[in-house]
Amino acid sequence: MATKRIVPEVLKGEAVFPPPLWMMRQAGRYLPEYRETRKRAGSFLDLCYNPDLAVEVTLQPIERFGFDAAILFSDILVVPHALGRDLRFEEGRGPLMEPISAAGIAALETETFHVNLEPVYETVRRLRRRLPEETALLGFCGAPWTVATYMITGHGTPDQAPARLFAYREGQAFRALLDLLADQSAAYLMRQIEAGADAVQIFDSWSGVLDEACFEAFCIAPVARIVRQVRAKHPGVPIIGFPKGAGALYGSYRQKTGVDALGLDWTVPMAAARDLQRTGAVQGNLDPLRLVAGGSALAEGVDAVLKGLGGGPLVFNLGHGILPETPVAHVEDMVRKVREARR
Amino acid sequence: MATKRIVPEVLKGEAVFPPPLWMMRQAGRYLPEYRETRKRAGSFLDLCYNPDLAVEVTLQPIERFGFDAAILFSDILVVPHALGRDLRFEEGRGPLMEPISAAGIAALETETFHVNLEPVYETVRRLRRRLPEETALLGFCGAPWTVATYMITGHGTPDQAPARLFAYREGQAFRALLDLLADQSAAYLMRQIEAGADAVQIFDSWSGVLDEACFEAFCIAPVARIVRQVRAKHPGVPIIGFPKGAGALYGSYRQKTGVDALGLDWTVPMAAARDLQRTGAVQGNLDPLRLVAGGSALAEGVDAVLKGLGGGPLVFNLGHGILPETPVAHVEDMVRKVREARR
Repeated sequence: MATKRIVPEVLKGEAVFPPPLWMMRQAGRYLPEYRETRKRAGSFLDLCYNPDLAVEVTLQPIERFGFDAAILFSDILVVPHALGRDLRFEEGRGPLMEPISAAGIAALETETFHVNLEPVYETVRRLRRRLPEETALLGFCGAPWTVATYMITGHGTPDQAPARLFAYREGQAFRALLDLLADQSAAYLMRQIEAGADAVQIFDSWSGVLDEACFEAFCIAPVARIVRQVRAKHPGVPIIGFPKGAGALYGSYRQKTGVDALGLDWTVPMAAARDLQRTGAVQGNLDPLRLVAGGSALAEGVDAVLKGLGGGPLVFNLGHGILPETPVAHVEDMVRKVREARR
Repeated sequence: MATKRIVPEVLKGEAVFPPPLWMMRQAGRYLPEYRETRKRAGSFLDLCYNPDLAVEVTLQPIERFGFDAAILFSDILVVPHALGRDLRFEEGRGPLMEPISAAGIAALETETFHVNLEPVYETVRRLRRRLPEETALLGFCGAPWTVATYMITGHGTPDQAPARLFAYREGQAFRALLDLLADQSAAYLMRQIEAGADAVQIFDSWSGVLDEACFEAFCIAPVARIVRQVRAKHPGVPIIGFPKGAGALYGSYRQKTGVDALGLDWTVPMAAARDLQRTGAVQGNLDPLRLVAGGSALAEGVDAVLKGLGGGPLVFNLGHGILPETPVAHVEDMVRKVREARR
């Protein structure tokens, strides 16, 4: 490779300053060009499964801001969808699924999984050809726990109580679901890597609602299973784990899953983040609302991340996805601040 | 005092096994006798301000389960209500308030605060007379950050984004609101203590959505201010701080607020909880959904708390309020398990 891609190197532990940056949900509704493309797609799922349009929206933030990484435009719920579960997205309500039962878990069908996901793999192949040589391409999947919460409840909830209760009451069926999701997600990530992804991220958006025993069984164990499988086949490709809201459990997650890099949400304090950074790269963790607010709230937030974590391997990012109401000018301001940072 | 109240002693650092226990929201909808009393009150606020009925519901779980502590039946939002803000509760929607502006903050009226809250103080006085001598009576208030989120947004949200954005944009007005709420809450807690409360708890239900700088300014600083004022006048009365969801920030909260005891939510892992317990009592932290589920989920959860924290000063409790759908038989089972625990 003629030009070096920085993001995978940092994810593997190299410290670079100023740090490379990208933003979770960087291809999204805060961008006018995304909203234009979105109108041309039918449903949100149509957009995910249309390589022409998915490539287009993935490239938009790269063209506009020159981020160091592009992330495949897709959704974590294409995995259960590819397993035959019903899925639709309603404006303002988020994803809606038919809640799964223990019997439904036993009946999940894996045979056409990769055929169903072929448009995603095609998107990855085209992206790697279209992206600038120095821009890393990230693949991703949802972590089994987070994906399972939507499959069980059928929609988002503030605390995932229905899925947690299902797990307490139907332990065997629930563990079978997590195992199946782990194996399919590992296979999904490997196909993305084979199609051209330079690194992959595992999103566990609902890690923060579990007690320690459940966190070990539902978050750590399935992600460790994914990491083992992916690493066996693609040992050089960095894996980012993002157990959002894991709080005091971040350390045990890093140690036991074996991920190369940790995505940090914005609530992780700097002393804890630096401790985590001693054993590998971290990614994050600006409060997305500081980017909405702009001004001194943004400047202070960027400074805190750079000062707190800039001395070690860091991929600058938000602590969660960018919000639709974020002004584009604030993103420009953030990118400038990070790029012009000097120690 | 002839009979010793165990809970305040444990909160001040004494280790007792089996630990004393009570449950957050123990006077509540899971109890048939509560639902009967509730029918006789008009609105939920009427119930809070009616000493006859508030005493009745506060005593119900003590009579049924013999908990070691009773907690005043009230709501954290009586404080802004007593400051003249509109407040109502709608079934299934929770509290609703008129969102406050910067001008509204400047216009808050403290003159009739204690007059408005006199029914609460009367409830406390009657409770201390009616409770068994050995049962501790706990007073409480909401922490300024959590109360402010409802005042600013007017209703609950999943992540308190409107209040956080208000704080970023209108920093001066927001800090003035927190200071005023801290001073009024301190005065409110002192009146509860003077009316007979043996200890007080400060509920910060929305601690878990802030980055480190905001946590320091919005959660720690106002609670430290309350603790200073209450302790200056009532140095012997233990104060419990409950920064729900504080995650890796629990340690700094304990150190900087000066609270005697820490309420732990169910996501705090045992190693972190034991670290926190080295410098003072802890209270918690069974996942309330384990109590809903019952059976082995409950047994394993109770064992984990007793084994993890039973060696130091512990008040056994849930990691958040008991849920309305909890079977009474599961509560009986939990009480038996804790009371019969042997090392």
